[in-house]
Amino acid sequence: MIIGELLNSSRSAVKEAVAAYNKEEIQRLAIEQTEAGADYLDLNCGVFVDDEPQRLIWLLKTVQEVSPLPPCFDSPSPAALEAALEAYEGKKLPMINSISGEQERLKAILPLVKQSGAGVIALCMDDDGIPQSAEARLAVAQKILAAAEAVGIAPEQIFFDPLVQPVATNQQAGRAVLDTVEGLHKKIPACRMACGLSNISFGLPNRKLLNRLFLVQLVSRGMDSFILNPLDKEIMGALIATRTICGEDDYCGKYLKAHRKGMFE
Amino acid sequence: MIIGELLNSSRSAVKEAVAAYNKEEIQRLAIEQTEAGADYLDLNCGVFVDDEPQRLIWLLKTVQEVSPLPPCFDSPSPAALEAALEAYEGKKLPMINSISGEQERLKAILPLVKQSGAGVIALCMDDDGIPQSAEARLAVAQKILAAAEAVGIAPEQIFFDPLVQPVATNQQAGRAVLDTVEGLHKKIPACRMACGLSNISFGLPNRKLLNRLFLVQLVSRGMDSFILNPLDKEIMGALIATRTICGEDDYCGKYLKAHRKGMFE
Repeated sequence: MIIGELLNSSRSAVKEAVAAYNKEEIQRLAIEQTEAGADYLDLNCGVFVDDEPQRLIWLLKTVQEVSPLPPCFDSPSPAALEAALEAYEGKKLPMINSISGEQERLKAILPLVKQSGAGVIALCMDDDGIPQSAEARLAVAQKILAAAEAVGIAPEQIFFDPLVQPVATNQQAGRAVLDTVEGLHKKIPACRMACGLSNISFGLPNRKLLNRLFLVQLVSRGMDSFILNPLDKEIMGALIATRTICGEDDYCGKYLKAHRKGMFE
Repeated sequence: MIIGELLNSSRSAVKEAVAAYNKEEIQRLAIEQTEAGADYLDLNCGVFVDDEPQRLIWLLKTVQEVSPLPPCFDSPSPAALEAALEAYEGKKLPMINSISGEQERLKAILPLVKQSGAGVIALCMDDDGIPQSAEARLAVAQKILAAAEAVGIAPEQIFFDPLVQPVATNQQAGRAVLDTVEGLHKKIPACRMACGLSNISFGLPNRKLLNRLFLVQLVSRGMDSFILNPLDKEIMGALIATRTICGEDDYCGKYLKAHRKGMFE
């Protein structure tokens, strides 16, 4: 499952377009990501501190005029999430990005998840920060799952994010994620997993290659959802080819189709 | 660990060069693979049915004139292996490619492994053929290990080959290898693993991409030795980058060195 990452206000083109209410630029990015095979569109207006809810609602409406994809509302702010969920009128359930094991965030956002039936990305960290070991991240995941189930949220709604950090500053950052993914796959199979990739390569050259090879290893361990740029042909091709190698592509049909579309050129 | 695969008589250029005792062509391939970072050079004269031992000895001597790398003698023939081991005068221990769980092959070749102290590639198959499941391949590996230990061979000498087959004809071929590698890593950690890659992509387009992404998944599961073409910059780059992601590259030093050498361009 692909969550298209391009409609994020931390990208200057998007920030400018949202600031100017420039529909054309936003809709172009929505259409391109939809056509490239995204399943959700991440919507982020986090840089608009003063009026994030209003900006997020405008972004949502603008995108929905041209794309049938459900949104992934990307904000740590309960107020912005609540307003956006309220304004959303599509049939497909949206996603929320994100909760964590931090108590205040859980308390504020879990009711929104329950009420909306949305999927939710859950960061494997809590009030003590990001745990270093895979074991400790798994323990946080179990804690979040318990809190979610206590308010009636189904495990299938939860997408755990193992928390990707730069390998340039912590040599074991990639290994910790790989081990967390393996552990989640085995110990909490009812839940799903999602993450972004680009943190892994922060501070190193050839970032896209590193992001891609990291994705290959995550797919190979059962991670099925990524927040990424679906217009990046090489990363989408690596995703398809890896699933073929892993036995998840009947008669190599998706691989051969992607080949005919020129995705491996 | 890289076993350079180019000096194989199933490649027509090598076959011709060995047939004509063309030192220059052979030595060029030996030097190029040595400079590209190979640790062993695979030597195969299997197409010379009538005089394989003599051809293999000539190939060995020719290569050793220009490369300090130890050979990996690649033959199913005990006579050819015995002659080549006898002729080898280098200090570094050679490798033998290969044994399997087939009783005759074990009986003929294990004494050569014991006597020479060589490393040996052990195919996870036996007289019943190639087992489909990872469990059955692991069982064959255990059987080979027991037979080897019975004649005094150290587990560290054994490199299990999980047996890569085309995903185009058996959708689960890649998955079976990945699971076998995971199982070997956990259950027989004293032994090592080695394999070729190109079988995985047989019958599909973009073979080099598939081979490379398969390698990434194998490295990520602890496989440390490959029979491959070390002149292929992209596969060598993928190997280095994957080890960096997996936490096996202090301060990303090898990755940055490879970058400066232009390996990711």
